[in-house]
Amino acid sequence: MAVSPLSRRDLDFLLYEWLDVTALTSLERYAEHSKDTFDGILDLCADIAVKRFAPHNKKSDQNEPRVGADGKVVIIDEVGAALDEFGKAGIVASQFDESLGGMQLPTVVARAAMAWFQAANAATSSYPFLTMANANLLVEYGTAEQIDTWVKPMLEGRFFGTMCLSEPQAGSSLADITTKADPADDGSYRITGTKMWISGGDHELSENIVHLVLAKAPGGGPGVKGISLFVVPKFLADGTRNDVALVGLNHKMGNRGTTNTLLNFGDGTHHPVAESGAVGYLVGEAHHGLSYMFKMMNEARIGVGFLATSLGYAGYLQSLDYAKTRTQGRPVTNKDPDSAPVAIIEHPDVKRMLLAQKSYVEGALGLGLYCSRLVDEQQTATDPAVAAARLLLLDVLTPIAKSWPSQWCLEANNLAIQVLGGYGYTKEFDVEQLYRDNRLNPIHEGAHGIHGLDLLGRKVVMQGGAGLQLLVETISATIDRAESAEPEYAVALRAAVERLAQVTGTLWAAGDPAVSLANSTVYLEAAGHVVIAWIWLEQLLAVGDSTGDFYDGKRAAAQYFYRYELPKTGPQFDLLAGLDRTTLDTPADWL
Amino acid sequence: MAVSPLSRRDLDFLLYEWLDVTALTSLERYAEHSKDTFDGILDLCADIAVKRFAPHNKKSDQNEPRVGADGKVVIIDEVGAALDEFGKAGIVASQFDESLGGMQLPTVVARAAMAWFQAANAATSSYPFLTMANANLLVEYGTAEQIDTWVKPMLEGRFFGTMCLSEPQAGSSLADITTKADPADDGSYRITGTKMWISGGDHELSENIVHLVLAKAPGGGPGVKGISLFVVPKFLADGTRNDVALVGLNHKMGNRGTTNTLLNFGDGTHHPVAESGAVGYLVGEAHHGLSYMFKMMNEARIGVGFLATSLGYAGYLQSLDYAKTRTQGRPVTNKDPDSAPVAIIEHPDVKRMLLAQKSYVEGALGLGLYCSRLVDEQQTATDPAVAAARLLLLDVLTPIAKSWPSQWCLEANNLAIQVLGGYGYTKEFDVEQLYRDNRLNPIHEGAHGIHGLDLLGRKVVMQGGAGLQLLVETISATIDRAESAEPEYAVALRAAVERLAQVTGTLWAAGDPAVSLANSTVYLEAAGHVVIAWIWLEQLLAVGDSTGDFYDGKRAAAQYFYRYELPKTGPQFDLLAGLDRTTLDTPADWL
Repeated sequence: MAVSPLSRRDLDFLLYEWLDVTALTSLERYAEHSKDTFDGILDLCADIAVKRFAPHNKKSDQNEPRVGADGKVVIIDEVGAALDEFGKAGIVASQFDESLGGMQLPTVVARAAMAWFQAANAATSSYPFLTMANANLLVEYGTAEQIDTWVKPMLEGRFFGTMCLSEPQAGSSLADITTKADPADDGSYRITGTKMWISGGDHELSENIVHLVLAKAPGGGPGVKGISLFVVPKFLADGTRNDVALVGLNHKMGNRGTTNTLLNFGDGTHHPVAESGAVGYLVGEAHHGLSYMFKMMNEARIGVGFLATSLGYAGYLQSLDYAKTRTQGRPVTNKDPDSAPVAIIEHPDVKRMLLAQKSYVEGALGLGLYCSRLVDEQQTATDPAVAAARLLLLDVLTPIAKSWPSQWCLEANNLAIQVLGGYGYTKEFDVEQLYRDNRLNPIHEGAHGIHGLDLLGRKVVMQGGAGLQLLVETISATIDRAESAEPEYAVALRAAVERLAQVTGTLWAAGDPAVSLANSTVYLEAAGHVVIAWIWLEQLLAVGDSTGDFYDGKRAAAQYFYRYELPKTGPQFDLLAGLDRTTLDTPADWL
Repeated sequence: MAVSPLSRRDLDFLLYEWLDVTALTSLERYAEHSKDTFDGILDLCADIAVKRFAPHNKKSDQNEPRVGADGKVVIIDEVGAALDEFGKAGIVASQFDESLGGMQLPTVVARAAMAWFQAANAATSSYPFLTMANANLLVEYGTAEQIDTWVKPMLEGRFFGTMCLSEPQAGSSLADITTKADPADDGSYRITGTKMWISGGDHELSENIVHLVLAKAPGGGPGVKGISLFVVPKFLADGTRNDVALVGLNHKMGNRGTTNTLLNFGDGTHHPVAESGAVGYLVGEAHHGLSYMFKMMNEARIGVGFLATSLGYAGYLQSLDYAKTRTQGRPVTNKDPDSAPVAIIEHPDVKRMLLAQKSYVEGALGLGLYCSRLVDEQQTATDPAVAAARLLLLDVLTPIAKSWPSQWCLEANNLAIQVLGGYGYTKEFDVEQLYRDNRLNPIHEGAHGIHGLDLLGRKVVMQGGAGLQLLVETISATIDRAESAEPEYAVALRAAVERLAQVTGTLWAAGDPAVSLANSTVYLEAAGHVVIAWIWLEQLLAVGDSTGDFYDGKRAAAQYFYRYELPKTGPQFDLLAGLDRTTLDTPADWL
């Protein structure tokens, strides 16, 4: 029997025993829901993920999309079949309003349900995920006509969506994009330029592809201020082919089942109209494109955190299963070579690798769900001050919710390979693919270093430092509650969070942003470990006095994190407090 | 122009300015050599590696060996062509005695020269590396006839060799191998059993394949005591096909160009003789096989360290080249979006990733070459006490020389991908393959955790703790020399090495090996960082007052290691000193 890619028991614990998502049903928006409907969607997604997504995960890795003789993208049939079932089940619309045909599911439940697909088959799951993010943005900023024309078919699973930000010369630095948007007489625009790394950028899986494209329209300021956002469909509403051309597919180390494309807009390959350029429709106001995109990107970043977490989780469960069945060697205290070998899970170092994985993936899943609940609280808050506070905390946590799982659940996959040894290095097992797939996550939706700059350079200082203060207060409130039940951890976490606040002050007191930000990635990593330690303390409070293997496992993983992981922040904070200039003082010629 | 896979400037520094390998030419064994002959072999190997090995590295990854319709292994032609040139240049015999047609090159120079092949093409380099290790073992323990029959053709590049240790059910635990050796009337043996993970186990690249096989012969004790070593050639001396059958090829995440095989010995596929079983010839004495193999394995382990280092080095140079040419973004203090983007090497976080790589790969290369010089000193020592001391230090350092590069030069490759961003994740560039290739190294020749047990469970305690004492004394001697020139580092390293000694005492004072060894992997990693910090201090002493970018680069990398890396050992030693029982106290059911 195949190993489950995710633990329903853990999801139940996190959702119901810790985050009390059932309480959300008392809110008007979720009044139609109940624990039963939540369970229903979790069951449905697990079922489709296990039965339709997981079985072709390896095949799709080994048969990546290719361009056929007719110039069309060829993808193995199983992908389309799985996505059809996903579409027909209405899951694309799970979080959307009932008025749009959606389920109005809380974000926290929807994210948990979607994690099944991400864990079962990252590559196939990316098509609907991009579509949902695209639709979400258009619902918020698009016109009624745009929603009608583009969003509804996406929610029905007939159209897929993409996000077109990067260009070959502009990835992390969006200020430097050169794709242009020229106004046409009919109020639409003509888009010309090249977009790189576009996932789902071309394929035959859906009737149409709705590209959301960043481009510079006349009259904008320099840099990011001049950026506007456009809907550029592969086929116009009347069925005419728009001038969006597939230039080529990127061939990647992992995530190979997702088409990743280089697209030309308006190069004349397909001519929809007399003027040159692909037809695009402005979304919202001109020159505000990046702010719209950032809203989507913040959601996408938490989505990347879930993707990284799900891949880590799948690897943890695979290596756990292997460790319980594979026999090899004997305990170090057993010197009898004639005794039977033991299951490798009995070796402390294997247990270390499993506990590490468990502490990473269950910690990361907890953080992702916590952030998702903040989204729900923010969106449903009747008090604007509450909504603002939830958004502020979410803003501070987002770079961590994206980067921490991308780093540590990747490390979990690394450990999963190590548990399986030589077998783990072969394509006969799944863990090497999980690792390759996961290696994407520290790169896309803002590379790792970008989030360090975002956290230290923007998030903790915004609103006069209110973001950091709120984070510290929130963590401190957890510590206060844990002081008698978990004194060891409460003391350790209080010291760490105080250090975080102190060090942040020291960094910004340097007076020179170059110095303050020189080690922002180290800051991101240290802050991430503090946050995950807090999430573990939160989980322990939910465990309380409960007995049984599941709860003891939570205690063991928390202990692992507090003993083996949190102390790693000590030297990181020391380095930061010293305003280390090693990188600043090393000119390129020395390297 | 392609980026060099290795830095000759750094090799010259390490060999001549630091390790003073020219001094070896005053020894009788190396009297025929000079700096000129050393340079000659370094030039020759670099030339063949760059011109014949590097060009097919990607092609061989993308066209892995397969079994043809005739049951023979098909490998792209470039592999055989490169190996032919390698063989004709006499490089296989570089370290062997002149009486065997060898060059009698010091190990330290030979390792440096061979690193060019490992950095240029890990997969193709593995065929001659296995052959050299095999030949080296047979020269030491084989009979004159065995040397004549099997070693000489290997040194001429006509035969290739393998090592057959693992079985499907016995990898780390060699005590549990079940391959049998039954004595035949003619003094040879009949071998029956299955061997797993055999690199170079079958192919058409050479006239013959000389397998060295561990098997259990009658009369041995239980477990590892019963293991003997046999030569089992694919073709007997008279050309008859021996009963060694290819069962299948393993398909791996990386290192794909190396055939990796499951072999059956004596299953009747090929019948050389009437009795069933493959014909094998005992090497040395019966039941001593594992000790012979361990001699080879110690060399192979240092070889794995070099392989990991070389792959890390190649990735460092690739990402350095990319970072100097790719432009993206602006310094955080430049708010003018109209200014030109800078080379990404100007961003502190990119510099951090490059400095980290540099500190890992140059530190690891230094350790590997230091260990190799110890081999030379041991082998040429006229005073047995000196020879014993060199061997003792080498024994202590070997698990670190294998494991540390396997962990940290893999991390270097991870950072190289990150420097290239999305491009680094594609197959268009080389860094993703380097990473996949390198992921093998923490697994083979003793998995990572095995070396922790070896270091803490055997090496530091052997001879009443003399091994650790010698390591501490050796490091302390360096610190004494560095005290005035590098006070910051001398103080830090002295504290770390004292902590290492203290913690080792604490661990063994626990009185229960299960407790002492529960965190042996953490011990391995902490000791590794202390050792690499020492190697960096050694390099700095060799740098002295020298001026110029190269030497400033050494200073910057050393500073990086002392500021960012060595402090990581603090929490590790704390955990160890606390005799942490987290892994011991977590039963399997909790996971």
